[in-house]
Amino acid sequence: MLKRYLPILSWLPHYQRTLFSHDLLAGLIVTAMVIPQSLAYALLAGLPAVVGLYASILPLFVYAVFGSSRTLAVGPVAILALMTAAALSGIAEPGSAEYVEAALLLALLSGAMLTVMGLLRLGFFANFLSHPVISGFLTASGLLIAASQAAHLLGIDSAGFTLPALLGSLFANLPELHLPTLAIGAGTLLFLIVTRRYATPFLTRLGLPDKLARLMTRAGPVFAVVLTTLIAWYFALAKSGVAVVGEVPSGLPPLTLPPFDLPLWRELWVPALLISVVGFVESVSMGQMLAAKRRERISPDQELLGLGTSNLAAAFTGGMPVTGGLSRTVINFDAGARTPAAGVFAAVGIAIVTLFFTHLIHHLPIATLAAIITVSILTLVDLEALRHTWRYSRSDFAALLATLLFTLVEGVEAGILAGVGLSIALFLYRTSRPHSALVGRVPGTEHFRNTARHRVESDKHIALLRIDESLYFANARYLEDTLYDLIASRPDIDHVVLICSAVNLIDASALESLKAINSRLKDSEVTLHLAEVKGPVMDRLTRSDLIEALTGRVFLSTYSAWRELRNPTGTRSDPPSISGPPPIHD
Amino acid sequence: MLKRYLPILSWLPHYQRTLFSHDLLAGLIVTAMVIPQSLAYALLAGLPAVVGLYASILPLFVYAVFGSSRTLAVGPVAILALMTAAALSGIAEPGSAEYVEAALLLALLSGAMLTVMGLLRLGFFANFLSHPVISGFLTASGLLIAASQAAHLLGIDSAGFTLPALLGSLFANLPELHLPTLAIGAGTLLFLIVTRRYATPFLTRLGLPDKLARLMTRAGPVFAVVLTTLIAWYFALAKSGVAVVGEVPSGLPPLTLPPFDLPLWRELWVPALLISVVGFVESVSMGQMLAAKRRERISPDQELLGLGTSNLAAAFTGGMPVTGGLSRTVINFDAGARTPAAGVFAAVGIAIVTLFFTHLIHHLPIATLAAIITVSILTLVDLEALRHTWRYSRSDFAALLATLLFTLVEGVEAGILAGVGLSIALFLYRTSRPHSALVGRVPGTEHFRNTARHRVESDKHIALLRIDESLYFANARYLEDTLYDLIASRPDIDHVVLICSAVNLIDASALESLKAINSRLKDSEVTLHLAEVKGPVMDRLTRSDLIEALTGRVFLSTYSAWRELRNPTGTRSDPPSISGPPPIHD
Repeated sequence: MLKRYLPILSWLPHYQRTLFSHDLLAGLIVTAMVIPQSLAYALLAGLPAVVGLYASILPLFVYAVFGSSRTLAVGPVAILALMTAAALSGIAEPGSAEYVEAALLLALLSGAMLTVMGLLRLGFFANFLSHPVISGFLTASGLLIAASQAAHLLGIDSAGFTLPALLGSLFANLPELHLPTLAIGAGTLLFLIVTRRYATPFLTRLGLPDKLARLMTRAGPVFAVVLTTLIAWYFALAKSGVAVVGEVPSGLPPLTLPPFDLPLWRELWVPALLISVVGFVESVSMGQMLAAKRRERISPDQELLGLGTSNLAAAFTGGMPVTGGLSRTVINFDAGARTPAAGVFAAVGIAIVTLFFTHLIHHLPIATLAAIITVSILTLVDLEALRHTWRYSRSDFAALLATLLFTLVEGVEAGILAGVGLSIALFLYRTSRPHSALVGRVPGTEHFRNTARHRVESDKHIALLRIDESLYFANARYLEDTLYDLIASRPDIDHVVLICSAVNLIDASALESLKAINSRLKDSEVTLHLAEVKGPVMDRLTRSDLIEALTGRVFLSTYSAWRELRNPTGTRSDPPSISGPPPIHD
Repeated sequence: MLKRYLPILSWLPHYQRTLFSHDLLAGLIVTAMVIPQSLAYALLAGLPAVVGLYASILPLFVYAVFGSSRTLAVGPVAILALMTAAALSGIAEPGSAEYVEAALLLALLSGAMLTVMGLLRLGFFANFLSHPVISGFLTASGLLIAASQAAHLLGIDSAGFTLPALLGSLFANLPELHLPTLAIGAGTLLFLIVTRRYATPFLTRLGLPDKLARLMTRAGPVFAVVLTTLIAWYFALAKSGVAVVGEVPSGLPPLTLPPFDLPLWRELWVPALLISVVGFVESVSMGQMLAAKRRERISPDQELLGLGTSNLAAAFTGGMPVTGGLSRTVINFDAGARTPAAGVFAAVGIAIVTLFFTHLIHHLPIATLAAIITVSILTLVDLEALRHTWRYSRSDFAALLATLLFTLVEGVEAGILAGVGLSIALFLYRTSRPHSALVGRVPGTEHFRNTARHRVESDKHIALLRIDESLYFANARYLEDTLYDLIASRPDIDHVVLICSAVNLIDASALESLKAINSRLKDSEVTLHLAEVKGPVMDRLTRSDLIEALTGRVFLSTYSAWRELRNPTGTRSDPPSISGPPPIHD
């Protein structure tokens, strides 16, 4: 019981030296890698850079206790930073004390919501974010974040949280282009892109072991940070107008209390909910993917608790909303982390930096951070998915496109709501017009397939109709139409057998329709039978008066219906007619 | 083509004398019956009584041309009157010129929406109002309307559109109880109830033909109207404080132009939409029921056009929102109407009354009208449905109860939205946790059933898993869980056959899950097969890379999968194990 809510108990008692050395190395690497990232995401959220560090300390400890994934690395991430900035933009001036407090509140609300959802075991809600919606959302977020960073690369101002607003302000401010900033930004960007693509093969060719080469490639951003900071310090670039991180207070994270301001709570609960959901989905997707690689499992409900408590920790230690990040998790996993202890070691590392070395960050150019974010975030952009999804399903494509466009043009919340809403609407629309097929017997077997697709035996007096959908309110009337049209167009029919192999539910509306169909067919002297009714559906039907009123029988299988109806007295011998195209498979 | 949009062309060319005499008689009866009703519903809507007459003239002509039901009688109805009053309550003083204009606008907007929906063939949207939602809505509406009429029966004031508000104001105003009004109201109520229950058998016993006896019973309200009007006139009850209809202007309906007032349009479009939807559903339910009795059919899309144009006609002739009414349609049908010409004759009758005889209505007590509405509306209240639905399905019961309670407490719009929202949410929830069953072969057949319910053959190396739901985003992850748990709990399994007989859709999210399952099972050295994949689903899968990556095969039937996997080389001969309870049916 305790183990279920405290996953730490499942690994800490068996912790031994091999695991320790793996985790320690991973923790050190992650420390070096995620510091620039954390600073950058805090700035992206409109917060002081140091908030990014604060949010990368205590939350990691807490996640190690409550989180169910072994390798997920929590902390500030790009998408939540963007959503935080959008949520707070109307509330206070970015960087002001009020703004920082509102960010704490956002973390508190989001943490509380995630924790409560976890306790209520609502992890399944994440399922309603379909694959195309997540894909469209990530691509759009990548584009939005890249657009927001473009201004930092060019040394100009920009404003807004939608693509039109961002591009508009970029173009409007283009005359203010700051060349030294551009030089640093574009230089770093180029360096990172080249490193990403060519460093590993180059270093391997130099004779480095493959693993070390890959590690050094991943450390590209750290080199860029060190190099550009040195340049900015040596040439005193801040004086000539290059934006740098500036003064970062040293010391451990402060103990903070999010403001108790009811109107503000009311204003922030919807963004907090969306931040919770998006953070949860990003985290679970990542966690599940990596757990699968190691044959481990994660529990969505426990993840809610892990992320919820991490956000609460962030709220009380001067942080911002956090979740399991894509890039920091990949770094952690690739660096060989085995247990959440790696996260603890990284947290210790970041705490040490925050305590003693923040002055080293002073001259780090913002443009460097922008370049790092841009390169890492553009991996989210997957335009190929558009083509794949279009080929596979128009409905899924529509959901993807709607999410993508709404996110770009109306913002993150609108995009997700549009995508989820459209996915659900299209699913309901599909199920409201179910596919149905008249089936016949595959000769020599007891198997029945669509007369239009397969070469099968049929009998003009017996209509075997397979309904390919659960029967519920949205398609109850459609079912009536289908049956009445069938009877009207084929006057020879004496028996209709509704094959319910695909009917997983008959709700009260559909029950009424079946009763109406039964009595209408009775008036037309057609007998209605059911076949292959599944257990749970049959259990329910026996509690209604349909079975009693039914003019025909309930057959266990289509074959038994066919056999009995074709030859009720055992005397009939006219052969069935065979028609349809030749068999396709088998 | 023309016939499709003008159903009148399908019956007018063949119109002959028998039809004419039937329709004329029905028209006369309807005229006498619906005049008090029309007055009452206009008053219920907070409009001058004469508006009810105006709304019962031109709309009937128009419906005769565009409507697809032969016997539906359109006009003002109780539910729409209540919804009209609720929509306009915040906009103007009931009875004022501004209020009357706003009612015209409501009819115009609703007419335009219905017409456009008809042209776009959106009739299927009505399907999303499930049977329990309609049932809960009608019961709640009946109770609300009865509560609103109680004040008129007692001669006191009341206010509000929700049950708490209505009952609260009733109790608060009870000291103002007006005894003469109560005498008329209660007397009429008693008379109507007694007539309804005992008049037909009584008159038959007196020797009247059965049909005439039933007709006279139905004419009960007309007797009540005539009698109480005479009493009120003779004793000049209006002077002693009994509310009467009062001055009703005579003359044909005026030509009116709904106000072109943009803020008002914005305020009214949501209520207009709900009025359209509710009116459409009431009308279609009624029309379909009666059409079924005569083996006729109605077209929901054409009904939208018929009701839309009727409402437009009401908007331009001083009317109010109209639809096919429950009680007036029953009267029309029972009186023997054969074609929409009966409606035209009734319209002519009402026009004649409006032209020449409105002064006769002056002394008609409002309490009489309230009694008529109360008796006719309480037939909508179906508390028995609560019990039935509870027995059949908890989900449907929840939707019914939510609609009922929300309508009573929060109003008509909230009730419908709550009911539809909950129905859809519960359906999605159900489909997100699909039932699945391990199946085995029913001995001696090619039929496969649940191993837990039937005595069937199975093989410990082959898991035949039937998934009882379409695979889509909401259950994709659940499918993965189900399969991984199955593999983990039964290490003997070499083959998993996913039986897709109930899978009507595999969307992009489920496709990703299937790919993940396939590669994960491959790592565990378990082969994944599919069986009974339906044509449309298979068509789509062949456009993806799943089939190529699949470790196993796609079998046409479960039996062929069973045969081939159990005996791939034709040599194996160990018998399958038989387990499970004895067969239930068949």
